[in-house]
Amino acid sequence: MALQERAIRTRRAILEAAAEVFDEVGYEAATIAEILKRSGLTRGALYFHFGSKEELAHGVLAVQVDALPPVPKQELKLQESLDEALLLAYLLRRESGDPIVRGSVRLTIDQGAAQGGLDARLPMQAWVEHTHALLDEAKTNGELLPHVDTLGLAKLAVGAFTGIQVLSNIMTDRQDMPERVIDLYRNLMAAAAAPGVLSHLDFGSDRGPRVYQEAMKLRQAGAEPEVAQGAMR
Amino acid sequence: MALQERAIRTRRAILEAAAEVFDEVGYEAATIAEILKRSGLTRGALYFHFGSKEELAHGVLAVQVDALPPVPKQELKLQESLDEALLLAYLLRRESGDPIVRGSVRLTIDQGAAQGGLDARLPMQAWVEHTHALLDEAKTNGELLPHVDTLGLAKLAVGAFTGIQVLSNIMTDRQDMPERVIDLYRNLMAAAAAPGVLSHLDFGSDRGPRVYQEAMKLRQAGAEPEVAQGAMR
Repeated sequence: MALQERAIRTRRAILEAAAEVFDEVGYEAATIAEILKRSGLTRGALYFHFGSKEELAHGVLAVQVDALPPVPKQELKLQESLDEALLLAYLLRRESGDPIVRGSVRLTIDQGAAQGGLDARLPMQAWVEHTHALLDEAKTNGELLPHVDTLGLAKLAVGAFTGIQVLSNIMTDRQDMPERVIDLYRNLMAAAAAPGVLSHLDFGSDRGPRVYQEAMKLRQAGAEPEVAQGAMR
Repeated sequence: MALQERAIRTRRAILEAAAEVFDEVGYEAATIAEILKRSGLTRGALYFHFGSKEELAHGVLAVQVDALPPVPKQELKLQESLDEALLLAYLLRRESGDPIVRGSVRLTIDQGAAQGGLDARLPMQAWVEHTHALLDEAKTNGELLPHVDTLGLAKLAVGAFTGIQVLSNIMTDRQDMPERVIDLYRNLMAAAAAPGVLSHLDFGSDRGPRVYQEAMKLRQAGAEPEVAQGAMR
């Protein structure tokens, strides 16, 4: 058990180092030598877990959705969906965010990574499925208008989030991400939420920091880091 | 005049060849040798117009918005905005689209291009300003609800379009782009359009092909290609 726990921690340390390098220089320019240096581990330890740069990148892509810590449960599933998007906006920040989230998102979006043989469909499909499930719960709860196609709305939410992230990165180095996310959800919800639900959603500008802090507490309270859990399933 | 016209055509041929190469392999892997080969022009002709790969990339980025041919004027400016997004979806198609649009969009979104010193703010800012102006016209016409912040909505539309393009590229090689664009605008307009306007907007699945054909006719009827006009201004 102690051995297995150590293997999980090593794996996580490697993925974090790899994600940092992928975030900074992209897939093509990243080298195993730099990832090794960053991780402080031996070459043998790295190759025990990952056989190549491609495997490292797939590892980073595979844990993208699991790298999002749980947000506090809410009565309104639409609030939970907004909270997750806000949390992701905070985790994408350059200084204080989560390296695995940042590196994995860059691998997903850069077209060069796809040409290097990486399959960005994996995390995108996972985000769409995750969001679809949450919106289905919201619909069952009567939070959405009856005509709403939850799969279409999930694709729209995931796609639009991806793009406002790109725009925010280019224009403000992701500083205005929380504001852009709130704008996005305000619009999506105004079109899709059932009457009366909209006014119960918290779109306040202090929502993001609060969700982030509570999610960090929930993550610390968990027995294992998220990535390790993902690796054990 | 004949000389100037030839220079404009040469410049356009170089930008198209460069955009094709940027679209296919990205900024970092692109070489002037490959761009030269693709353009069929002499090295001297290319260097007369562009001094380096970076200048070529800036040239491609600079004409991104102008590369969109005009869509037919509409009474409802919101319809014109939707039509432009649909047209852009068609121009991004891999086989039959516009190489300058595709290459320029890849340069804008790939983070590696930014690290190579390219400024993706230029085209993004141009899209936001263009969309903002159109939405301001729509608001003046009474097409939008009074509380709508047209700059915020423009950022949302440009950002969301960028992302659904990334998602559609990853998941369906851009085959479902028109459908995703219609979904996006249906949602944005449901939240922002004045009562009565929504039912006058054409969200039909045959709208895209029709707008594309009419825009191509308008472009052919023009005396000069769009890029040349951009270069002459």
